[in-house]
Amino acid sequence: MIERLCIIGVGLIGGSLARALRAAGAVGEIVGSSRRAEHLQQALELGVIDRYDTDPAAAVTGADLVFVSVPLGVMRTVFERIRDALSEGAVLTDGGSAKASVVADAVAAFGHVPPFFVPGHPIAGTECSGVEASFAELYRGRRVILTPLPDTDRVAVQRVRAMWQAAGAQVDEMEVHHHDEVLAATSHLPHILAFTLVESLARFSEREQREIFDYAAGGFRDFTRIASSDPVMWRDICLANHDALLAMVEHFGRDLEALKTAIREQDGDRILQIFQDAKTARDRFAG
Amino acid sequence: MIERLCIIGVGLIGGSLARALRAAGAVGEIVGSSRRAEHLQQALELGVIDRYDTDPAAAVTGADLVFVSVPLGVMRTVFERIRDALSEGAVLTDGGSAKASVVADAVAAFGHVPPFFVPGHPIAGTECSGVEASFAELYRGRRVILTPLPDTDRVAVQRVRAMWQAAGAQVDEMEVHHHDEVLAATSHLPHILAFTLVESLARFSEREQREIFDYAAGGFRDFTRIASSDPVMWRDICLANHDALLAMVEHFGRDLEALKTAIREQDGDRILQIFQDAKTARDRFAG
Repeated sequence: MIERLCIIGVGLIGGSLARALRAAGAVGEIVGSSRRAEHLQQALELGVIDRYDTDPAAAVTGADLVFVSVPLGVMRTVFERIRDALSEGAVLTDGGSAKASVVADAVAAFGHVPPFFVPGHPIAGTECSGVEASFAELYRGRRVILTPLPDTDRVAVQRVRAMWQAAGAQVDEMEVHHHDEVLAATSHLPHILAFTLVESLARFSEREQREIFDYAAGGFRDFTRIASSDPVMWRDICLANHDALLAMVEHFGRDLEALKTAIREQDGDRILQIFQDAKTARDRFAG
Repeated sequence: MIERLCIIGVGLIGGSLARALRAAGAVGEIVGSSRRAEHLQQALELGVIDRYDTDPAAAVTGADLVFVSVPLGVMRTVFERIRDALSEGAVLTDGGSAKASVVADAVAAFGHVPPFFVPGHPIAGTECSGVEASFAELYRGRRVILTPLPDTDRVAVQRVRAMWQAAGAQVDEMEVHHHDEVLAATSHLPHILAFTLVESLARFSEREQREIFDYAAGGFRDFTRIASSDPVMWRDICLANHDALLAMVEHFGRDLEALKTAIREQDGDRILQIFQDAKTARDRFAG
């Protein structure tokens, strides 16, 4: 049971966590914080939070659990602002999509990684953003990865784990850099490709664009759905996880080059092999 | 009203057309043909066709409308086999995803593009294939592009148009090469990217793969859905539409390279611009 949960950044991720914990009866009071008062007012009116303060230091006061769910680019600033206001015994966790950068931000803000900080990442989301898109079932049956460090307090890890389990998620632990590599492959690279494809098509003339999008079938819509994701959040992910992401883009680029060569050389056997291997893998894991 | 429709290749596309026309009361008898008798037997048992013949020449005899829905790589062979068996006044159309290659196949088989041949392409489908995946509503509200040539009989065009409208589709006309360019952008390139991404990830070790696919969220599933499409059909599309497709892959490759450079140089403004443009375009057309 969480007595007072403070959520900094009450959007899709933070808002859905609040709704899920409240639905599960796993939380007493929920205090929200964000740079923009109108977002907090909306969250209050939706019943997602009980009260708010635009000053994160004031918002975390007296909270036994603090969840920071802001774009990676402002993580460090938030840590700096709450550093001296956290209550004795409070547990701090986050929802950032890359973990090495958040750990570096914690070191920059606290001088070291505090034992009460449990880096985390819920593998959930939709292409929508904002508290109005939040819903209590977002984490049900989804995975949450925690990346504790050797010095992280195991009791803190246990409390964050219990929070996510109360929200319906399955919680795993992973090493920080390994997390960043896995996510570069499964999430960051696909987003890069979808954003690039849509932007690439959007630079055709208005008439051509209209035609392209008119004749796009369901597959295109599904394929490009993630290109409707929050641009700021994804810019920050690209900047924060650039090493792992660039390695994955290189890896993909080589494979695309190989397929291009096969198409140019009209090498049907090679093309078929690539497509069959892809279909087999896709059907196996998502079947 | 079609008296006798012959469908060569009774899979998702051909089977769904048969179901839709029957549901609309727009067809008398439906005769199926395919290389594999067991597929035809299944289509018969599902009530999709009324009878079948594995010999396409026998199947088209007496049909007033013939729809060829086979992978692009066997289109020419089918045309050659039915050439001398088509009834006087019969209209021939197809469902191939690239049109210049089908027109070339018609020239190869008939010596010219016959006026009764109306090249066509229903912009519909799912990642599933086979007659068991077919359903009467597949074409409802979807687009069908016809690419008649200057010599194509307008009465033949009108009959094919009426057929697709009876199946619930909206029918447009487009020039052959323009069709191939538009489809390279909206369909062929996205499939190439999805197949390449999944195959790229599938070459990691078994343990890494398991992890990658375990932690893949909904966005990844949507993004890679089209990588479950039929490999033979897509190999043939790559071979048939290789000029337009390679041009699109080059176009995309330059944009991916530009984004890579922005990430490497930590150019947040440039990255944000690309993502914002993509989101704006995506939200505008698919919103």
